[in-house]
Amino acid sequence: MDSPRRPAVERWGIFEIRLPGPTAGNPYTEVTFGARFACRHREIEVDGFYDGDGEYRVRFSPDTEGEWTYTTRSNAEALEGRTGAFTCLPASPANHGPVRVAHTYHLAYEDGMAFRQIGTTCYAWVHQGRALEEQTLATLREAPFNKLRMCVFPKHYRYNQNEPEYYPFVRQEDGAFDWTRFDPAFWRHLEGRVADLMALGIEADLILFHPYDRWGFATMDAETDARYLRYAVARLSAFRNVWWSMANEYDLMRAKTMADWDRFFRIVQEADPYGHLRSVHNCRGFYDHAKPWVTHASVQHWDLSRAEEWRNAYRKPIINDECQYEGNVPNNWGSISARELVHRFWLGTIGGMYVGHGETYLHPDDILWWSKGGVLHGESPARLQFLREVLEAGPAEGLEPQGRQVAGQAGEYYMYYSGVHQPAEWPFTLPEGGTYRAELLDPWEMTVTPLAEGLSGEITLELPGKPYQAVRLERI
Amino acid sequence: MDSPRRPAVERWGIFEIRLPGPTAGNPYTEVTFGARFACRHREIEVDGFYDGDGEYRVRFSPDTEGEWTYTTRSNAEALEGRTGAFTCLPASPANHGPVRVAHTYHLAYEDGMAFRQIGTTCYAWVHQGRALEEQTLATLREAPFNKLRMCVFPKHYRYNQNEPEYYPFVRQEDGAFDWTRFDPAFWRHLEGRVADLMALGIEADLILFHPYDRWGFATMDAETDARYLRYAVARLSAFRNVWWSMANEYDLMRAKTMADWDRFFRIVQEADPYGHLRSVHNCRGFYDHAKPWVTHASVQHWDLSRAEEWRNAYRKPIINDECQYEGNVPNNWGSISARELVHRFWLGTIGGMYVGHGETYLHPDDILWWSKGGVLHGESPARLQFLREVLEAGPAEGLEPQGRQVAGQAGEYYMYYSGVHQPAEWPFTLPEGGTYRAELLDPWEMTVTPLAEGLSGEITLELPGKPYQAVRLERI
Repeated sequence: MDSPRRPAVERWGIFEIRLPGPTAGNPYTEVTFGARFACRHREIEVDGFYDGDGEYRVRFSPDTEGEWTYTTRSNAEALEGRTGAFTCLPASPANHGPVRVAHTYHLAYEDGMAFRQIGTTCYAWVHQGRALEEQTLATLREAPFNKLRMCVFPKHYRYNQNEPEYYPFVRQEDGAFDWTRFDPAFWRHLEGRVADLMALGIEADLILFHPYDRWGFATMDAETDARYLRYAVARLSAFRNVWWSMANEYDLMRAKTMADWDRFFRIVQEADPYGHLRSVHNCRGFYDHAKPWVTHASVQHWDLSRAEEWRNAYRKPIINDECQYEGNVPNNWGSISARELVHRFWLGTIGGMYVGHGETYLHPDDILWWSKGGVLHGESPARLQFLREVLEAGPAEGLEPQGRQVAGQAGEYYMYYSGVHQPAEWPFTLPEGGTYRAELLDPWEMTVTPLAEGLSGEITLELPGKPYQAVRLERI
Repeated sequence: MDSPRRPAVERWGIFEIRLPGPTAGNPYTEVTFGARFACRHREIEVDGFYDGDGEYRVRFSPDTEGEWTYTTRSNAEALEGRTGAFTCLPASPANHGPVRVAHTYHLAYEDGMAFRQIGTTCYAWVHQGRALEEQTLATLREAPFNKLRMCVFPKHYRYNQNEPEYYPFVRQEDGAFDWTRFDPAFWRHLEGRVADLMALGIEADLILFHPYDRWGFATMDAETDARYLRYAVARLSAFRNVWWSMANEYDLMRAKTMADWDRFFRIVQEADPYGHLRSVHNCRGFYDHAKPWVTHASVQHWDLSRAEEWRNAYRKPIINDECQYEGNVPNNWGSISARELVHRFWLGTIGGMYVGHGETYLHPDDILWWSKGGVLHGESPARLQFLREVLEAGPAEGLEPQGRQVAGQAGEYYMYYSGVHQPAEWPFTLPEGGTYRAELLDPWEMTVTPLAEGLSGEITLELPGKPYQAVRLERI
């Protein structure tokens, strides 16, 4: 006799339970709901959420192939003690699982594939309406980026004056928000965009708070903050491409204290069954990324030569998400040239950190990529694709500093980047026992030119005497 | 009846007394000699020196027009109590006197004309023989530089292996130096080169010690150091274009302590009747330029954005004499591009400091400008001439920081430099009451383009959206 056909979901995919439940009172504050998932010896508690219209959901992303069972829990009888089962199948080829810290200063998908972060920023892209959002996705499909920084809340700032279509909280007739009721339409839209990014192989670095606000999202009370965080994590943590950024420019949010940020980290850490990456982004002073709940440093700084200092301070991956953007707005943060941005990516990479892109060219309709998405106008993305390919062809353990302006893996791989320097000769001492091949890389021209084969010991390579050149030495 | 014709010398020129004296024993250590010069109420004690072949000299540079008298002093009868007089005439048009600190952070000649330091470095140029030295002078005649850093002692370093023609001390038959006897031929040659620079209107920043040595000049004993310093000052201080740099890269001279450097400053300060500019140049850690005997900070640092920090620390003119050189040697210190060097000059200038040039292009005969002189190969000097002309046309009090990336004199003159930024718009608020003219300056193309006239209040200028541009606003 056949057993009833079990639902199936791929590893690091999403299994969802939907149950009808109470609609009386305020389900967001009065009804608890969740499920315990089990696979062999393991049990995982997962929070559910109310999705409006009497429907309750739990989302779960299994990390282990095989048979899973679950039992729901709730303070509402209709949602309590329901059981079920599903099968977790192998991941499909493009699904490598969530991104984790690897080799202390680097990142890798859970299946072990290295993740070479080439990020970009479109803070408010999910608040721009369907046409522009789909244009953004079409652009991302052809772009080099594998991570996108994006805000949950809409944004109020120069070039960002338009009203969003959706709000995270229910807006009442008087225009005020009911801070105790979430608006499921907002969240379904947001989730859809996170899923769109997942389909493109792009990590969604979700920014949970930010200071650029005219609606009150930056100044909610502590209880609302916590309820918001738990709701966001319950809805979104099953998406394998989610990263949690507690804030963009946390230090500009005057209503929050350092204790608030610590608390937000702990709320997210406690509620997220998968341990997605967690950080918080500064304007000026860095958060102390050495704190145990921080998985990696997400910083803003124009000086790309300080990787060593930050690596030593935090002993975690360093991502300089905002090293100023390619563009031409009046502000320094958004007016570096494409050449300068590409230079900064290489400088940071050779220092042992990862770097983020953004683009801020003035636009007649204020559609600047950095916030609204749309199309890319700049000259850096093609060069960042080149860098990404270079990194992905490099050592799986990532590039580690190997002396001044050189990174790689000792004995196997060395990459020298000249930066503003233009030596006509580059001396280097290769470790004993190996034979190496040397190539000249031009990060702007995107060319790879053979220099020499069969190298060993003390070498002096002739270089073209131009700045912004790289030399790659690989053991053969 | 006519009085006997008095000798005459121009203001800030050199009046010299030459007298025959003892040759027995060691005149350098045994004979004291000097003179007291008097003009009206003032008396100035000046040290003389033995010039070999039985001749003793005192050099004096009068700073006041009129009648001067003198009386020599010595422990040798032949040199004691000789008297004389001379007339100090007005300075000739190209003679503006020694350079002094002016307006705290700037420099001016003693006649009040602003001195906008555009320095260069030819460490060992006076040790290269007549042909190359005269080529260096011919190059300097057409170059933008008004200050030259140069070592008294010869230099031993990569690209610097040739033996000098002259040595400051007498070399004995066994090749060892007699540290108690100076070689006048060396000093006459050096003085001739200082005079050559004076004739070109170039300040000679004389480096008294440096670490790159194979002869023992970096490891002399304290008594020899002091005798050397006093001899150098006695011979050279009457040249109005002399500056004293205690050392190049003092911190690499292991045989010297910080107390030695303090002592050297005090010896020079005490011996120099004219109070020429005094500083000391670092490799890594700066000397404490706040010490009272330091007139200005002469530093080496690649980061040109730190003028404010150093100005606040020292409250003196800041000269970044070594911000890395235009060239293509393997080392970072000598391999930045011309564009990068020009950028660094502008960055430092807008920050409120002065900057120095050097050039290090590999040469088949190791004739690199930075050390030996010769001809210039680079593309930066023409652009530094443009900068010099811009500065000399600017406010007499110099450029003072006026907010981010802007320097000038409040209410009169503002210079904005975009650096790596390429804004298409530049907003600025002009002080009330004035009307201004705006021009776009391209430091690399060396062009000045009118932007607007009759500006006042809050303005937004349209810029070309290119990096490395400057805007000059002048009150009209």
